[in-house]
Amino acid sequence: MSVLIYSGGLDSTVLLYKLAAEKRISEALSFDYGQRHLKELDCARKNCEVLNVKWRLVNLHDIGSLFGENSLTDERIAVPDGRYDDSNMRSTVVPNRNMIMLSIAAARAIAIKDDSVAYAAHAGDHSVYPDCRPEFSDAMESALKLCHYYPICLLRPFSSMNKAQIVALGSKLGVDFLNTWSCYKGGEAHCGKCGTCRERREAFAAAGIADPTKYAG
Amino acid sequence: MSVLIYSGGLDSTVLLYKLAAEKRISEALSFDYGQRHLKELDCARKNCEVLNVKWRLVNLHDIGSLFGENSLTDERIAVPDGRYDDSNMRSTVVPNRNMIMLSIAAARAIAIKDDSVAYAAHAGDHSVYPDCRPEFSDAMESALKLCHYYPICLLRPFSSMNKAQIVALGSKLGVDFLNTWSCYKGGEAHCGKCGTCRERREAFAAAGIADPTKYAG
Repeated sequence: MSVLIYSGGLDSTVLLYKLAAEKRISEALSFDYGQRHLKELDCARKNCEVLNVKWRLVNLHDIGSLFGENSLTDERIAVPDGRYDDSNMRSTVVPNRNMIMLSIAAARAIAIKDDSVAYAAHAGDHSVYPDCRPEFSDAMESALKLCHYYPICLLRPFSSMNKAQIVALGSKLGVDFLNTWSCYKGGEAHCGKCGTCRERREAFAAAGIADPTKYAG
Repeated sequence: MSVLIYSGGLDSTVLLYKLAAEKRISEALSFDYGQRHLKELDCARKNCEVLNVKWRLVNLHDIGSLFGENSLTDERIAVPDGRYDDSNMRSTVVPNRNMIMLSIAAARAIAIKDDSVAYAAHAGDHSVYPDCRPEFSDAMESALKLCHYYPICLLRPFSSMNKAQIVALGSKLGVDFLNTWSCYKGGEAHCGKCGTCRERREAFAAAGIADPTKYAG
């Protein structure tokens, strides 16, 4: 059984549905690390309710100030518009976020005697986010196998999929895409212009699936 | 420059003094993860004041409940007496504690553009604590080198030293051992009987250095 790192975004929601369908999930952990797009956490809670998966919110709000200058946790820095793979997306990198979330999820897995943690890193993340690259995940997998008396495995079934393939899988699994949140700006509606909104729109288009998202403007 | 994971215990205080003497430390991070021996944090703060090292307390108090049954964060479970390497010390294992602290320290190092994190794992830790074993630290070192655009190094200068050698080094560096805290029970004075108190006493004896600690009873 697995503990899922679950943001409430599109990718991790598809993974939630997949693990729930396979009866391989015991808990989903969402993290408040001071991100401005807290709306994703509402989506996370609601999807877990729908699927009857135990949901936990991990409060790391106080450590947001440790992360220094980045546009997700520092309100003085604007979230950039542009393509997801642009170098200006680097301001959206929260340092070492995945290792922090994986380490806490592994602690929880050990506490409840699960054998694995799961996360939804996918092939499209790799260019911008160093802690989504396969070589980082491989190293984390090695560390997780050694962090306790028995090995904790790292599940990352989307690591060689692109976001369009994830949308297609989510559609098959009956994911309610309206109840997933991607936009980094944290407004009332998806802005449609930031890197993650553009990536979301393009994924639906590439998958040939109607995008139900209401974009602003 | 380094960010130190700093508990306020004997080993990490000696490392604080060592890094300060070498002018290789920019910040020391101490963690409140719900441990019953919070007294160590007072020691940490005071030693950083004395050495004029920037000290930060990382508040993870809320996540203590994730850790399940262990004697350090669950008050219903007694801290065992006995030798440090006894199997009954396993109840003092907080799951994946070192990975959590290393990941947050690395995030801070990235934010302030340091190149390394340091921690005081030593040879005597290995038998009980899976996340103090060299093979775990090796795997973490690999992950830390890949978690950002530039590598974060893992400093662990005590990894092949025993605690007696650490006491001897601390004595040379002028460490105020009275202002270090080992006891897991978190009483007014060191209990003298739990595994970590026994290890502390034996280290002073083996180093041939007078132990200034006031043990209860």
